[in-house]
This record gives sequence, C-alpha cells and structure tokens, in this order.
Amino acid sequence: MAITAYQKCINPDCGAEFDRTEAIFKCPKCGDLLDIQYDWSKAKLPEKMEDFSKRWANRNQRLDFSGVWRFRELLNFCEDEHKVTIGEGQTILQQNDFIAKELGMDKGNVHLQYEGLNPSGSFKDNGMTAAFSHASLVGAKSCACASTGNTSAAVSLYAHSCGMKCTVFIGQGRIAFGKLSQAMDYGAQTIQIAGDFDDCMKQVQDVCSKLNIYLLNSLNPFRLEGQKTIMYRIIESLNWQVPDWIIVPGGNLGNSSSFGKAFKELKDLGLIDRIPCLAIINACGADTLSYLVNQRGLKWNSGWVESKEINSLYADFTAKKFSPHTIASAIEISRPVNLKKCLRSIEICDGLVIDLPDEEIKDAKAMVGKYGLGCEPASAASVAGLRRLVQDGTIDPGEKVACVLTGHALKDPDLTVNYHTKREGVLSNPPVEVPNDLDKIIDIIKA
Amino acid sequence: MAITAYQKCINPDCGAEFDRTEAIFKCPKCGDLLDIQYDWSKAKLPEKMEDFSKRWANRNQRLDFSGVWRFRELLNFCEDEHKVTIGEGQTILQQNDFIAKELGMDKGNVHLQYEGLNPSGSFKDNGMTAAFSHASLVGAKSCACASTGNTSAAVSLYAHSCGMKCTVFIGQGRIAFGKLSQAMDYGAQTIQIAGDFDDCMKQVQDVCSKLNIYLLNSLNPFRLEGQKTIMYRIIESLNWQVPDWIIVPGGNLGNSSSFGKAFKELKDLGLIDRIPCLAIINACGADTLSYLVNQRGLKWNSGWVESKEINSLYADFTAKKFSPHTIASAIEISRPVNLKKCLRSIEICDGLVIDLPDEEIKDAKAMVGKYGLGCEPASAASVAGLRRLVQDGTIDPGEKVACVLTGHALKDPDLTVNYHTKREGVLSNPPVEVPNDLDKIIDIIKA
Ligand SMILES: [Zn+2]
Ligand SMILES: [Zn+2]
Repeated sequence: MAITAYQKCINPDCGAEFDRTEAIFKCPKCGDLLDIQYDWSKAKLPEKMEDFSKRWANRNQRLDFSGVWRFRELLNFCEDEHKVTIGEGQTILQQNDFIAKELGMDKGNVHLQYEGLNPSGSFKDNGMTAAFSHASLVGAKSCACASTGNTSAAVSLYAHSCGMKCTVFIGQGRIAFGKLSQAMDYGAQTIQIAGDFDDCMKQVQDVCSKLNIYLLNSLNPFRLEGQKTIMYRIIESLNWQVPDWIIVPGGNLGNSSSFGKAFKELKDLGLIDRIPCLAIINACGADTLSYLVNQRGLKWNSGWVESKEINSLYADFTAKKFSPHTIASAIEISRPVNLKKCLRSIEICDGLVIDLPDEEIKDAKAMVGKYGLGCEPASAASVAGLRRLVQDGTIDPGEKVACVLTGHALKDPDLTVNYHTKREGVLSNPPVEVPNDLDKIIDIIKA
Repeated sequence: MAITAYQKCINPDCGAEFDRTEAIFKCPKCGDLLDIQYDWSKAKLPEKMEDFSKRWANRNQRLDFSGVWRFRELLNFCEDEHKVTIGEGQTILQQNDFIAKELGMDKGNVHLQYEGLNPSGSFKDNGMTAAFSHASLVGAKSCACASTGNTSAAVSLYAHSCGMKCTVFIGQGRIAFGKLSQAMDYGAQTIQIAGDFDDCMKQVQDVCSKLNIYLLNSLNPFRLEGQKTIMYRIIESLNWQVPDWIIVPGGNLGNSSSFGKAFKELKDLGLIDRIPCLAIINACGADTLSYLVNQRGLKWNSGWVESKEINSLYADFTAKKFSPHTIASAIEISRPVNLKKCLRSIEICDGLVIDLPDEEIKDAKAMVGKYGLGCEPASAASVAGLRRLVQDGTIDPGEKVACVLTGHALKDPDLTVNYHTKREGVLSNPPVEVPNDLDKIIDIIKA
C-alpha cells in the first residue's frame, strides 16, 4: 500500500511540511508541534472496522498479533520491515457494573480500558511501537529519553527489542521504585543527573543533537499515532459502537491529543458516524490545562491559540519557582508538551477538562482495585473524573462511558500499601492481625 | 454440549469417583489427589486446533475473549452461565533470538511465554478462572486461601469479580511487597496469623470447613484444568506445532502437573501428534522434587508411587525444622502439593527435573529483562534451566524450546533494584551519577 504520510506544522501561520523520514519532532521554522498527516484518498482501507478484528485470529503473524499494527492502515507511515513490535496492545476493556452502581451510572454503561496490561506496564507501549518504527525507518542506532517513570520503562524495553542502545536520563527528584527498576532491568544505561527534570530535558536534547541519537520525548508525533489505537480497541470491544464519553487523565496531554485525532480521522473516513465527548482530568496540583481552558478561556481557535496566555502562565511558574505536586506522579506535569494538540482534541470532541484533588484520585484508585483489575494512581484520575462529572450532572447515568486506565497497579505498590495500612481513604482495607487461634479467626471473619 | 466431567482419585488402589459438583479437593476415602476426567467419546471438539484461534476475532464475546475459555471444549466441566472470566490469558509467546544466541541455541528456537501479562500479574489467573467457575457451579458465596504471594492476588481479584467475599490468610514470614499490596487493593480481607505458613494452611482449612467457605488451595484440581491452556496458547502461537521442550519452574508443581495432562489429552484426542519433553526447574534451596526423582528414583509407576520415600523425606524436614530458602519466593516450597501428579507428567512427557542455585536464577532473570519483557525471579528458573540443559548437552541447539515465565517483573521490584544497584550478578546495570554538565554526560555515553 502506498505510504502517503508526511509531517506538518500545526501552526496555521506556518504550515510547513516535512518528509516522514525526518527526525525533527518540532517545526524547524516556527518551533510549533508537528502532526502526522496522510493523503487518505490514496489509502486502501478495510471496508468496515470489523475487518481489523479478524486479524486477531492470525496469532503468529507479528503485525496481526499487535494491538497497534492490526490497525496499520490507520497509521500508515512506514514500511512493514521497519515496524517494531513486541506484542503490545493485548489490553482489556472491562464493563464494570460494580463501579457503575457506586457512581450512580446505569448498568452496562461504565467501561474501563486497562492499558497497564501492555508489556512495560503502561499505555506508553502504544506510542513506542510507533516511534521505534519511525526510528528504524530513519536508521537510528541509539536512542534516549528523559523520564521519571513509565516512558523510561517503555523506551528501554523497545530499545533492546530492536537492538538499539538506550540511555535514560533521570533527575534527583521523586521516582516510583517499580518504574526505576524497569529501566535497569531492560538494560538501559541510566544516567542520573545532578539536577531536576528540566535539567534532564535540556541535557537529553543537547546530547541527542550532538551525538545523533534518536530522542523519544513527548514531542514525537509518531508516538501519538500509536496511541490512537487505544481508541480503536475501545470501540472494537464495544462491537464498533462509539461510546458517549471517553475520560482520560491529563499529563503531557499526548493521549488526549491522539484520541481527538483518531476520532476525527475515523469520522472523515466514514468508519464511525459520530465522535464521543472527551473529558480530560488534571490533578489539582498539576492543573495547567484546566486553568487555561476554564479560567482563561483558551481554545484551539483553528490553530490560532492565544500563546500569550500560555506564556504568561509559564512565566509566572518560573517567577514563583512553581513545581507541580500530586500523588498521581504520571500526570505531575505543569508545562504539558502537547497542550495545543489537546486544545484541538477538545474542539473535535466537544471536550472539557476538570481538576481534582489527590484524595479523590486515591479513593478512585482504590475503587478500581476493589471492583476492577487495579491501576496506578494517575490512571484513576479518569474514574475520579467520572464520579465528579456524574455528580455535577455533566454525564447522564444513561450515557456510555469508557475510562482509560493508563498504568499497571504494580507500578506504584507503595501508594497502595500506604493507602490501606495507614487508612488514608474511605476504602482503606488494612490487614488484621490475629492470634493463631481458630475461634478468634472465625470471630473476625463472621464480624 | 454434554458435560461429562467427574472427579477421580489418582490412587490406583482407590480410584474413587466423585461428582463434578463436589468441593472436596482430596479423596475422602484415601486422602490422595483428585483429577478431573472427561468422557471424551461424548465430547464435541473442533476438528482442528486452528478453530480455537478463530474465536479471538469475537472480541466482545466474553468466553471467546478469554485465553482460557476459548478452549472450553478441553476443560468442559461446567455450564457457560457459571463460567467466571476477567479476560485472562491475553499472554504473549515471544521468540527471543537474543537469549537463543546467549545460550548457544539456534536462532528461532527459544520462546518465552509471558504469563505475567495476566490481569493479576501471574499465571495463577489461568487456574483461578477455572476454580471460580467451579465455585460458582457449587454455589459458593465466599472463599479463602492461604498465600504469601501470587495466589492471594489472583484469588482476591477473581473473588470480587464474581461478587464473592474473600479472606486471605498470611503468616508473619517474608512476603513480596507488590504481592501483598494486591490482596488489599482487590478488597480481600487479609488476616495475618501469628504463625508461619503451615499454621496458615491448617487454619484456613479448618475455617473453610467450619464456615462452608470455598477453599482455593493448590489441591484444587479445577485450577489445573485452567492451567492446561498455557500449553494450548504456546502451541497455538507456534502455529499449532508442538515444541521439543517445555521448561517450567517447579514449586507446588501445579503447572507441571497440568501440562502433562494437557498434552496427554491432546494426544489421545488426535489433536497433536507428539508430546514435548518437560523440564522442571527447582531452586537448590527448595529441591524436593529434584531430590526425590534424581537421588531416590521416585517415579509415577502407574500411580503406585513409593510414598515411603516422600514420607521419610518429610519426616526428616520436620525433625530438622527445615525451611526452604530461595530468592525465587514463588517456588520456595518444600512439600509440593501436586508432587504425585507431577511424577505422572514426567512420565507422560519423558521429563526431567534439575535444581539450580539462586545466583543462576538471578542472572537468568536479568537476562529476561535485558533481552525480553522481564519477569519475576521464580519465573526465570525456566531460562536458567535452559542454560544449564544446553550446557550439559541435554538440549540440542537445534531443538525448539518454550520457557514458561510465570510472573510479572513488577511483582518483585526490590530484587531487581538490589541486583542492579548492589552489583549482585554478571548483568548488573546500575545507574551512573553525573554532574549537570554536557561534556561529562557525553563522555559517559561514548565510553
Ligand atoms: Zn512551523
Ligand atoms: Zn482415593
């Protein structure tokens, strides 16, 4: 099939176009974000979405087995021989009637999408399979990223899977234990810089440009192409019905950016007949998107985003030496890289954003554990968001909702153990110590 | 389809039969293990194994989506309405040519089966979906288990998924942090008894029998029916070719017991034409099976197992107050529950057992991280076993091998972090601390 993909600057005053084989990630002309575009008129697509599902039966065809590349016609930016896959996307959409009941939703209407079941334990694998395919396309031999968590795990895993050298930059701040273990386990060179995350970001960019290393940062537009497939899998599991709402945690805003793009493309192609509403959930301690949209009225505005609103807020952050702070470490970000693309998604999906306190996120995380398959703290922002949006009447109990759970429960067991043993929330469930005595044990069980 | 399953004592001097609706788990007449048997003459089976794969395309049919119940004709012990599933078995068989090369095997011949990608993070889910279906069949309202790890996670998860109350008994000994977090997270009542694991086992049995609670212990023969599907998925991923070797860690010996049964049944049914060899890997510090088979010549012997060999060893354990000890906590077991069934598997599969020191298991774990998707320590016993069996000439580089990796890498991140940061093994890969200085960073990357 002809590959018609190219990169295009999202700034309408620029609109510069670049070949798919360039590894530039932001517009060299204006510095704005790049987007992957396709000439769909030349695309050979399945007649109906159901045809994608049939590929699951080909368990020993690597591209059909992948939950990302099964949908390859919808992210057709590289030849098959460059596609890097480790079997990502074997994820589960779970109809959860227990949580529906707890939150006052109708039975059958609450669905949880477990992206933590990916090989590295988070949704990042969806993006990395795409970005590493691009890295292979451009002939990269080594790669790097700066990350305090899930990104470093996913990058390290994909790097060794395609035989690339990998360097992970971490700062001296907080890092979840399970996540740090993964970069070392997957054989990445881990460099701990005497500085904070911003220092890491600066150094990794300089190092990559000096040494011609492929940079796997959040600017990479190919990652977002892979993340589109999370939405394909959700609607596939709903028998190709589009839900009324998609709810997703908001950090660097890559997911929300890619979801809007996914639905716009499917609608334009006539593969779906309507687009769901998108709700993005910030933590209160990292509420840049929520503040800019809800307090400052920031909009996509056909690409003419009011940059001065953003710049003024970020200048304020710098002046006040503001650092974001939330227990939901995966969304603890104050300068979201994909902000503008996310504004576009909000327009496409008639979306909204809210910010919630850590307590609500922690209780929602416990709810996903008690009634579902469990998730890491940031993931639960989506369920906390659902609770709030039902309470305030935004979401009707009769509407169908899919909450994206981005990471595995075992990514951050410390928080789980603390929540339960230190009785930090309404669902705390600490162990009970008892003597080695049958009657006393029975008393406790019967209580 | 007619259900012809029944339970039968494996002791040939007894051979008592019991209905599938009984929750007894060991023979009330002689105390030996029970087996699930089927009258295959009345079974309606697919004509060929490929027909099982086609069901994967039905992503929104719960039984077709399950990696266990997709094969339901081969574990046909309960009606569909009783089948409990949470989408288990979306696991990956990875051809790993990096490890093949490291171990001196031919390219294309080493495969790793990642059972840690199950919802609770271990292979246990395969068994629990079956056991909870049986629990539903017998009308159980609550359940319990005694476990220091993966079992408690899986039991807690399945219990809430089908609305059962669940109690987990733990002792005061060592327990991996990630695993304990799961029982609490999944909402189980966790009871910590002032005693060791043997005390737990005794109390949980007494409590279950007094309060009519369904016991999810390792005796449960329905769990083994679910675990058979690990083998079905392996041969499915190999395009329905049987490998030459299956290698599996040996703890309570449920997996090895079920694998032999799986292959025997498939062969009897004409669905495969040969049975692979089975290699079971003990840790040196928990080598009961290896000792009994290799030093004492213990054999299945058509069911007439020399019990006095077992009894004499266990009496010796008691006299010496012996506790097993290995970093591979999931196989740290000295009195394996399914010992006799495992002996049967060794006969069926022309199998063998070896025991390996912790150092080899730790290095093998690091190898699975460096070149694969990662795994918990006990899982890596299978890869450590492959290394040893290639070295000693038992396995030929031209033979096709599948190593079963039983648990998720994030189950025990402490061991991973210690291995790398404390330089405990040949693959240790600790972080490097550097100043916030571009030239110094570049020096390290280029080094
Ligand atoms: Zn531009
Ligand atoms: Zn008997």
